[in-house]
Amino acid sequence: MIKTDILIIGAGPTGLFAVFEAGLLQLKCHLIDALPQAGGQCSEIYPKKPIYDIPGFPEVLAGDLVDNLMEQIKPFQPGFTLGERAETIEKLDDGSFIVTTNKGTKHHAPVVAIAGGLGSFEPRKPLLENLEKYEDNGVAYIIKEPEVYRDKKVLIAGGGDSALDWSIFLADVAKEVTLVHRRNEFRGALDSVEKVQQLKNEGKINLITPAEVVALKGENRLEKVTVKDTSTSEETDVEVDDFIPLFGLSPKLGPISNWGLEIEKNAIKVDNTYDYQTNIPGIYAIGDVNTYPGKLKLILCGFHEATLMCQSAYQKIHPDKKYVMKYTTVGGVTGFDGSKKEAPKAVVKAID
Amino acid sequence: MIKTDILIIGAGPTGLFAVFEAGLLQLKCHLIDALPQAGGQCSEIYPKKPIYDIPGFPEVLAGDLVDNLMEQIKPFQPGFTLGERAETIEKLDDGSFIVTTNKGTKHHAPVVAIAGGLGSFEPRKPLLENLEKYEDNGVAYIIKEPEVYRDKKVLIAGGGDSALDWSIFLADVAKEVTLVHRRNEFRGALDSVEKVQQLKNEGKINLITPAEVVALKGENRLEKVTVKDTSTSEETDVEVDDFIPLFGLSPKLGPISNWGLEIEKNAIKVDNTYDYQTNIPGIYAIGDVNTYPGKLKLILCGFHEATLMCQSAYQKIHPDKKYVMKYTTVGGVTGFDGSKKEAPKAVVKAID
Ligand SMILES: Cc1cc2nc3c(=O)[nH]c(=O)nc-3n(C[C@H](O)[C@H](O)[C@H](O)COP(=O)(O)OP(=O)(O)OC[C@H]3O[C@@H](n4cnc5c(N)ncnc54)[C@H](O)[C@@H]3O)c2cc1C
Ligand SMILES: Cc1cc2nc3c(=O)[nH]c(=O)nc-3n(C[C@H](O)[C@H](O)[C@H](O)COP(=O)(O)OP(=O)(O)OC[C@H]3O[C@@H](n4cnc5c(N)ncnc54)[C@H](O)[C@@H]3O)c2cc1C
Repeated sequence: MIKTDILIIGAGPTGLFAVFEAGLLQLKCHLIDALPQAGGQCSEIYPKKPIYDIPGFPEVLAGDLVDNLMEQIKPFQPGFTLGERAETIEKLDDGSFIVTTNKGTKHHAPVVAIAGGLGSFEPRKPLLENLEKYEDNGVAYIIKEPEVYRDKKVLIAGGGDSALDWSIFLADVAKEVTLVHRRNEFRGALDSVEKVQQLKNEGKINLITPAEVVALKGENRLEKVTVKDTSTSEETDVEVDDFIPLFGLSPKLGPISNWGLEIEKNAIKVDNTYDYQTNIPGIYAIGDVNTYPGKLKLILCGFHEATLMCQSAYQKIHPDKKYVMKYTTVGGVTGFDGSKKEAPKAVVKAID
Repeated sequence: MIKTDILIIGAGPTGLFAVFEAGLLQLKCHLIDALPQAGGQCSEIYPKKPIYDIPGFPEVLAGDLVDNLMEQIKPFQPGFTLGERAETIEKLDDGSFIVTTNKGTKHHAPVVAIAGGLGSFEPRKPLLENLEKYEDNGVAYIIKEPEVYRDKKVLIAGGGDSALDWSIFLADVAKEVTLVHRRNEFRGALDSVEKVQQLKNEGKINLITPAEVVALKGENRLEKVTVKDTSTSEETDVEVDDFIPLFGLSPKLGPISNWGLEIEKNAIKVDNTYDYQTNIPGIYAIGDVNTYPGKLKLILCGFHEATLMCQSAYQKIHPDKKYVMKYTTVGGVTGFDGSKKEAPKAVVKAID
């Protein structure tokens, strides 16, 4: 059982910044995310695109913003349960919560902050017979650890940035990379498309277009996929160790919608007049996942909501303590790792 | 008469960021500030100190944050009335407002956003007879334009960062710099104290301590100040062109408190359930200057409040238009100066 002060569901920018604000209050956080990496939409959908409305950044790549946030929260040593979806919640008699993931990992905390964005990202799966049989057994929709594919024969399907970028990356790692797409045209960053063209010319990526995977074969584990050339309807079996369909991820509020929370427009209603708490005391909702009058689904709003939420969580966790806010510039930042950042102090010194 | 869409009182971080959010909605802004420069507390009180809780910045100097904000809002060409205090407000029959400064500058706008922080910064003045006679006539409390002191004889009084830093700066500009302080000890950044010591040793700054200015003399304009050595009580007249007492600035809500706004704890009450509007429709209050349940006087909160305020202001200014929010990453930023920032577009391109 993982124990923490604030259990945060969703490691997008909002959840990440909550770790910082909680840390200033000496509260520890643990984050659960269905994705294998932190950063939410910023990392998963547009890591290489610039954002222009983060205050103080005339321009920042979404991926760099996430890196900066990770750096900012480092002193507060957050725990992570990645690649798992928060599935069920149970309220104990003492008012604390146990949250269990789809893989059975249990987390216990007095306060839960849902920073689930548009929901947990679920892969769009191809419609293939036997698909489930091979899941985690030759078929994966998300690449968590590229080293798994070292010296393997990998077949990637898809025509967007993920399919292009992973084909490029795995060309150096895997024994064989085959990229299958139902059109000849790919949609992505210009340099990614050009790089795949080059790797194809060098024989480092096998390209099969226009084509689609129509069947999976293998005794216990995936051994072959059948690829159909959609212009000739000819079918060929390709020997593979791994099949990775990268057809995009679509966010689904999913299990959280059954937790007894008030839901409106696919988002969780919160009390924006005070602390972004939901109808269940002790459960907060911050960032894209919540709704209230005038709500804007912007990163900068999530930062504010996370900050106010932490103040309220502090009062809940320490009902007897009175917290006096100190500016970071004045009080510095004291990490759980013993680190200390602080502004150089003024001196009082005679001039003679 | 200066005309604009949103008249912002206070050019601190909150007011500055409001310009950006308004600009995204194609609304123009004009800012009034009592200080000669933008940036509010960040520029005036702690420009060289690090802030640790601006989201996405593990550490940023307050002055750099302001520079970044100025750069971010540049495309939206805000107007500035600096060095003037917003004094009176008048509501016209059409619901719009005229705001007049202490220097008589008039501004007309359908919406007013008060981003006045802790209030307009007013200098702490020494208690001296005839002081007012010499104001703007040899006596100044804020240095707006250092070139004014070129080849002049300047006497600065004070023992903090401002007195130290301006003495250092003017040592290169003025004909003569005298620094008077009632103690031998100065309080400031170590390198400033050391630099003044060095300039004193080189004869570039005359240092008189422990001492204070006890009288001002001069026919029409300031000609001499009387400095009293507080250890011996001896008095000496020093010939000067300018006397600049730098005893700090203290913020005063001041004239705004008489505008009929609901005030609580020296701050303006706003409707935080929606748009940070005050009890007077069309007047908003954002950032440190406002109060609501759970309010935190933090920069990041001002950013959020400014953003929601702009959405509401847009509806007020364009009651018939429906605004559909677009992410900056998707829609880019189109400046009033014709500039355009946007994310590189994905290409759709065949690989053969
Ligand atoms: C193309 C694009 C451009 C954008 N441009 C801008 C812009 O310019 N400016 C701006 O401010 N915003 C922009 N946004 C929106 C911005 O990305 C979101 O506002 C922001 O990501 C919200 O952060 P969050 O942390 O609340 O949620 P998210 O980033 O959505 O993160 C939520 C995380 O929670 C996880 N999660 C959800 N439910 C569960 C569960 N049950 N178990 C485990 N994990 C779960 C998800 O997997 C996800 O990783 C853009 C979005 C897109 C898609
Ligand atoms: C030493 C110190 C350290 C701090 N550290 C941090 C920190 O680490 N993190 C953090 O988030 N915050 C910190 N703060 C607080 C932060 O600076 C404020 O929250 C922030 O400046 C508020 O911004 P604002 O734009 O709302 O108001 P301000 O920065 O106060 O700006 C308001 C402006 O309005 C002007 N004004 C007011 N009334 C009038 C009028 N009638 N006419 C004309 N002009 C007027 C004033 O002159 C001023 O320039 C710190 C503050 C101090 C003093």
